[in-house]
Parts: sequence; C-alpha cells; structure tokens
Amino acid sequence: MPPLLNAGNLLTSQHMPTITAVQCRHVHYDLPPGAGSDAVHATPKYGYAVALLETSGDIKGSGITFTLGGGTDLIATVAQRLVEPIIGCDIEELMANFGAVQKEIAEHQQLRWLGPHKGIIHAALGAIVNGCFDLWAKSRGVPLWRLLLDLTDEELVRTLDLSYLEDVLDGDEALKILAEHRLTRGEREPVIQSGYPSYDTSVGWLGYSDEHVRDNVKGALDEGFTAIKLKVGSADVERDVRRTHAIREQVGPEVTIMLDANQAWSLPTAIEACEKLLGMQPFWIEEPTQPDDVFAHQALARALAPVPVAVGECIHNRVVFKNFLQAKAMGIVQADCTRVGGIGEYLAIALLACKYPVRVVPHAGDMGQIHRHLVLFNHIALGHEKLFLESIPHLREHFVNPAKLENGHYLAPEEPGASSDLKL
Amino acid sequence: MPPLLNAGNLLTSQHMPTITAVQCRHVHYDLPPGAGSDAVHATPKYGYAVALLETSGDIKGSGITFTLGGGTDLIATVAQRLVEPIIGCDIEELMANFGAVQKEIAEHQQLRWLGPHKGIIHAALGAIVNGCFDLWAKSRGVPLWRLLLDLTDEELVRTLDLSYLEDVLDGDEALKILAEHRLTRGEREPVIQSGYPSYDTSVGWLGYSDEHVRDNVKGALDEGFTAIKLKVGSADVERDVRRTHAIREQVGPEVTIMLDANQAWSLPTAIEACEKLLGMQPFWIEEPTQPDDVFAHQALARALAPVPVAVGECIHNRVVFKNFLQAKAMGIVQADCTRVGGIGEYLAIALLACKYPVRVVPHAGDMGQIHRHLVLFNHIALGHEKLFLESIPHLREHFVNPAKLENGHYLAPEEPGASSDLKL
Repeated sequence: MPPLLNAGNLLTSQHMPTITAVQCRHVHYDLPPGAGSDAVHATPKYGYAVALLETSGDIKGSGITFTLGGGTDLIATVAQRLVEPIIGCDIEELMANFGAVQKEIAEHQQLRWLGPHKGIIHAALGAIVNGCFDLWAKSRGVPLWRLLLDLTDEELVRTLDLSYLEDVLDGDEALKILAEHRLTRGEREPVIQSGYPSYDTSVGWLGYSDEHVRDNVKGALDEGFTAIKLKVGSADVERDVRRTHAIREQVGPEVTIMLDANQAWSLPTAIEACEKLLGMQPFWIEEPTQPDDVFAHQALARALAPVPVAVGECIHNRVVFKNFLQAKAMGIVQADCTRVGGIGEYLAIALLACKYPVRVVPHAGDMGQIHRHLVLFNHIALGHEKLFLESIPHLREHFVNPAKLENGHYLAPEEPGASSDLKL
Repeated sequence: MPPLLNAGNLLTSQHMPTITAVQCRHVHYDLPPGAGSDAVHATPKYGYAVALLETSGDIKGSGITFTLGGGTDLIATVAQRLVEPIIGCDIEELMANFGAVQKEIAEHQQLRWLGPHKGIIHAALGAIVNGCFDLWAKSRGVPLWRLLLDLTDEELVRTLDLSYLEDVLDGDEALKILAEHRLTRGEREPVIQSGYPSYDTSVGWLGYSDEHVRDNVKGALDEGFTAIKLKVGSADVERDVRRTHAIREQVGPEVTIMLDANQAWSLPTAIEACEKLLGMQPFWIEEPTQPDDVFAHQALARALAPVPVAVGECIHNRVVFKNFLQAKAMGIVQADCTRVGGIGEYLAIALLACKYPVRVVPHAGDMGQIHRHLVLFNHIALGHEKLFLESIPHLREHFVNPAKLENGHYLAPEEPGASSDLKL
C-alpha cells in the first residue's frame, strides 16, 4: 500500500477545506395516499437523518441515511455523538485513509454494544460517511462518480474498512479486482453518455388499487421504462397471483417485472407463494422472508432458480452480505449506501460481489440520488453488469439536484458531490 | 392450541392487575478501574434501560436491558414509543397470548425499518417484554422460574413469537419438546435445592494486571468457584498466551477456564491465536470474531473441535441463532434475555437449541439476576445440561434482590418476579 498522501493529493491539498462542525438533523416527508406501501409498511413516511458538514470554505457536505418512518431523530442523535473523529480534519487528509476513520467510528467503545455494525448506530455512521464522500467530491469540483473513477486503485482501497472480510476480501484482493477491470474500462465508459437504465418501483405499491397500478404501469411504459416492480406479500396470496398475472397480460412478455414481498413470508409460505408467482415470469423475487436468514434465502435461491432472489435493503453490513454470498443465498445484491455504513461500505460490498460474481442492483433509499453515481462506478470500474437502478420519484422536489431521467434512463449527474443535498 | 384463557387463568384473573402506564428510564453505573474491560471495551460503564410497568394494584413490573456504555437513553426512548399495545391490559389476559403481542411490537410499522429485530429497537422490545414477565410472576406471587415451570406447555408456547422459525421450530414442535422433557422433570428438580453452578467472569478483565488476575483467581477458588473466565484478544497474542498459561499453571488441570476474545480477531487471526491458546486447555473460546459471521464461526468451530465456540451476547435475535445452529457454528449458546427481545425470545432460542442439541449458557447482562431463573427452567423443563451460569458481582448493590451465591452456586430465587428491580 502507498503512503497516506501521494503527489496528486498534495497538490490539491492547497485548497482543501477543513471540517469545522457537523450538524445532524432529521426530516420527514408525507407521501401521497398509498405511496410507499408494502406488505409490512401500510403507511410509511419517508425520512432522512442528515449529517451536515460545515467547513472553513464555502462548501458543505451533506450525508443522508433513509428511514421509512419513526426513529430518524435517533439516528441523527447518534450521528451527532459519533462525529468527533472528523471534526477539524482537512477533507483530503481524512479521505486519504478513510477506511481507518470509518472503522474508528464503527468501533466506538461506548456505542458499539448497540450493534455492532447494525441498526441505528450503523445508519448514523452511514450519514457521516456519506457526508464525507459528498464533501470530498464537492471540494474537487466533480460529481461523485467522476471522483471515484479518477482515484487510483490504492486511493480507493484506502477509503474502505475491510475488517472482518479478510477471509474473502483483503486490501490486496480488492486491488487485484480493480486492476483487472481497469484494463477494460473503455468498453464500459459509453454508459456515461447513454445514461444508466432505470426501473420504476412507484407503479405498484401494495396499497394501490388494481386500476391505479394498471394506469401507472401504462404511464411508466409511455415514459420509456421497460422494467417495473410490483409489491406482493399481501395476506391473500391469490390476490398477489391475480394482480401480477393481470399486469403481465397487460404489458406482454417483453417488459421486465420484479416482485417484492418485503419480508412478509415465513420460509414455508414463501416457497408456496413463489411457486404460484413464478408463472407470471418475474425477473426476480425480492425479500421473500426475514432478511437475517441466510439459510432460508439459500433454500429459496435453490427452489426458485433460475429466477434470482434479490435481497439487501435490510441487510446492515458487509459481514452479512459476505455470508449471503458465501451461501449462494442471493442472486441480486441490493445493498443501499443509505442503510449500510455509507458509500464506503457499499463499495466494499460491491467489490465482494465481484468475487462470486453476483449482480448488484442497489435499493434506492436515496431515491436514486447517490446510487446513480455508484452504479456508474460499479459498471465501469468493477465490471458489474449494466442492469437498471430503482426509480422512486416521490421525493424529487425535496432534493437540490433531483435525478434527471430520460426515456427510462438516469443521466450521469453533472453537479459536484453526491447529489444528496436536501432543501432543508 | 387451546383457547386464550384456561380455567386456571380465569380463577387468578379475579385479582389480576391492569397495566396503567409504562415509564421508561435509563441508568448507568461506574465500575471500579479495569472492571468490565475487554478487547473492544477499555472503559465500559454498565447501564440499563428500564421499563417500569405501573398497575392498578400495588405491584410494578420492572424490565431491563443491558448496555456497556452510551445510548442507553435511546433504548428507553424507543421503548416508550413502543409500549402502547400493553397499556390498559390485564396482565393475565396479556400473557395468555403474549407471543402475538411481542410480534406486534417487533413489527411496529414505523420503527421496524431501524432493525428489523436488532439493535436499539430490539433492546427496547426486550425491556418491555421483561417487564411483562416480571409483572406476571409478581402478580401470581411466585418467582419467575416457578411461574414458568407451572405453566402448561400450551400456555408457555403462547407466550412465544416463533415467527420466522417455522422451518425449524413451530408451535407444535415446541409443544413436542416440552412434552418429551416433562416426563423426566423429576430427575432434574433437585437443582432447586442444590442451587445452580456458577462461573466467575470478574476475575480476569483484560485491563487487570497479571498480579491482580492471579489474586482474583485465588479468591474465587477460595469462595468455592471451580470455573472462571479470562479475557483475551489483546493486540499482542503472545501476552494472551503467557497470561492464560500462567493461570492454568496456578490453578491446575481441574479448574474449568473459559477464554473470551470479545470479537477482536479477524477469522485468519482467530485461527492462528486459538491454535496457540488451545494449549492451556480452555473449556470454550468465546466470541472469536464478528458476531454476525455465521461462516467464520463455522470454520472456527471445525478448527477448534472438540473445544466449543461460545457466542451469543451480541447475536440479536432468534433468526440469527437459528442460522448459527443450522451451520453448527456455535457449541455454546450464549443468548441473553437483556439483549435479544426479552425473556420470550430467550425461551424460543433455548427451545431451538434443544433441537440440535447445543448447550445453553446465557450471557449475564443482567448480572445473573433474571438468568438464574431461566437456567432452572432450561435444565428442568428443557433438559439442557446443568453447566454453569456467569457471575459478575459489580452491580450487586444496585438490585433490590441481589443474587445469592453459596460455594459457587446460585441459590434458587425466592422473591416473586424476575429479580430485576433496581434501586432507582
């Protein structure tokens, strides 16, 4: 591994801002009736814990983690208790060895017991980490995807906390993966111009009437989407079967449809329900059961093959993702940088997924704002298949730089940073 | 399954108290220098989130969950937000179908996202559940162990939330396990008179000098203990080897010594360190690595056999315990009712462990106060081996009814309830 600062960093360090303070806040947004509803959340409110990084310069970092309802205030409270290691740091120096900083915060001696590496304290870590990456990209005047692609492999790996992954992925192994894919980056860079495909989750919330879903699906196809997601997991499996088959009939065989049960089923019920739902040709079945259960997902992955099981929005950390991958229990990795310990842990998980290999399609707790950067990096630098990124438009108006979609594709963001500034 | 209330419950229901309010609080205690220190907590403070159940009668329920430091206030805050389903309930009616109540709280639509079933929200559930069991036993005027032993199998199973365990343990399977062991209870009931063996954890905190540990060990043996635990996982493995071998030489081959690394090691480091430590003949090696990592523990269990791997104080819920048991990744189940979702989830885990079978030795976040009840039930009603229960005396003075130990044995508690009342 190289020394902490290389020549490139020393040059930019002349202008690097210092983090002078961090203000942690929380915010909630009401959703239209039925929006966001699924098998275990009838009336969600979307919310963010926000770590606002103030600096000695003009720019501010904004780091967000997502919730579906209550407790967002507690994430902000914990984040405020965890920020000490980044206060007073120059952003370039901080990010030159950020993996160690992330680990220091994650291993906080007094708060570690509340996890470790999960729940409210881990979401709080994520907000801080995301704020640091946002500030770093802003301080260099580039969008996050460009920052990540322009880092040397060594610089990128130094941003990651790979502890407890050593048996599968250590720093050297990560460098090897990055170096290997660097040779063929050119083949994948056209995605920057073409945009990254998207799928529409907002058409099929469980609380919407059949008619509402039908109209939404028609609208999405008219806008250029060729992939959509429908919620299942209602108390009556036959209702799920009827509704999803009806949509398949409506759109024909060419449209890609994902099904999402949001953990509603026990393993025996999941196997029974999925067998009935496979007839409508889903592209994947998502969160069939409790998200800690590696072996239940392994059994489902075997039962549903070749249709993959997608899971990850409620998997909290890289260690559990490692176990799911080791067990061949997930066919789609749905890590979310606003749920795990931030962009750094997301990148570690995306690197892990290269080893098996398993496709990565992030859950979009950020409404796609940050992940539209990360999927560009996934595809270009890690060689992950260009599949599609979730689109949920309900909070567009609350972001300073809402994602731009054209013909069902996310355009590459142009604004500096991670696009995670909220209108607070 | 029987109807909600049987004749016995109807009789007692004439006097049953109603829960009128719940006050959730938190409390911390300073420890003597070095006490409680381990490989990842140099200066812990022990603390409890407490759910105080007020009633229409004279008695109050007290439910505790444990922390090693900060954030206890947040557990209390969440518990206060979760108590609604038990307010206004008569305790007998509540406990007659308590599994459903526990599930309702665990699946709280707005807070579930912060887990599910882990971290601060799950500890908050645990405080509420423990308060309900305490109040139930007090309202019947019996210690918790007696209450649990006197329940019919059906009544006991109705207190449990077995959701997401159905593939391994459903209600019928739980009834079968209970019925099978009921036939031989008499053979194991003498433990009520003899007391339950204990081991002393407080002799060997990592921050204690070698001399201090040596003196503590001598003192523990003089008091009648025949089993002790030593902390390892310091940055210098050779220090751990020297110190643990020296204690083995001091006490001779007959004393049982457990080693506890508190998650300090990566898997490769753990295998290397454990190989060196096996020479001092440990009875088990505890928490060698990150507690979510099923497959790392599986690899260690294989590498260390026949010495078992002990783990569980940081495993949050029954689903993860199920996975560890399925993978043969734990040889000692260290579930803690003040860490998982309370006494009900602890009992579900103890039932799960019967199926494999794997021995159960609870971690004592409650300082053994509640678990000295639960190990009696474990042994008599579930047939678990009478091994020993952890003893940590540092908070004795803060409990209204501190555990009584004689000659290294916990005496069966006589006071009504779960012995979890703190002097607040």
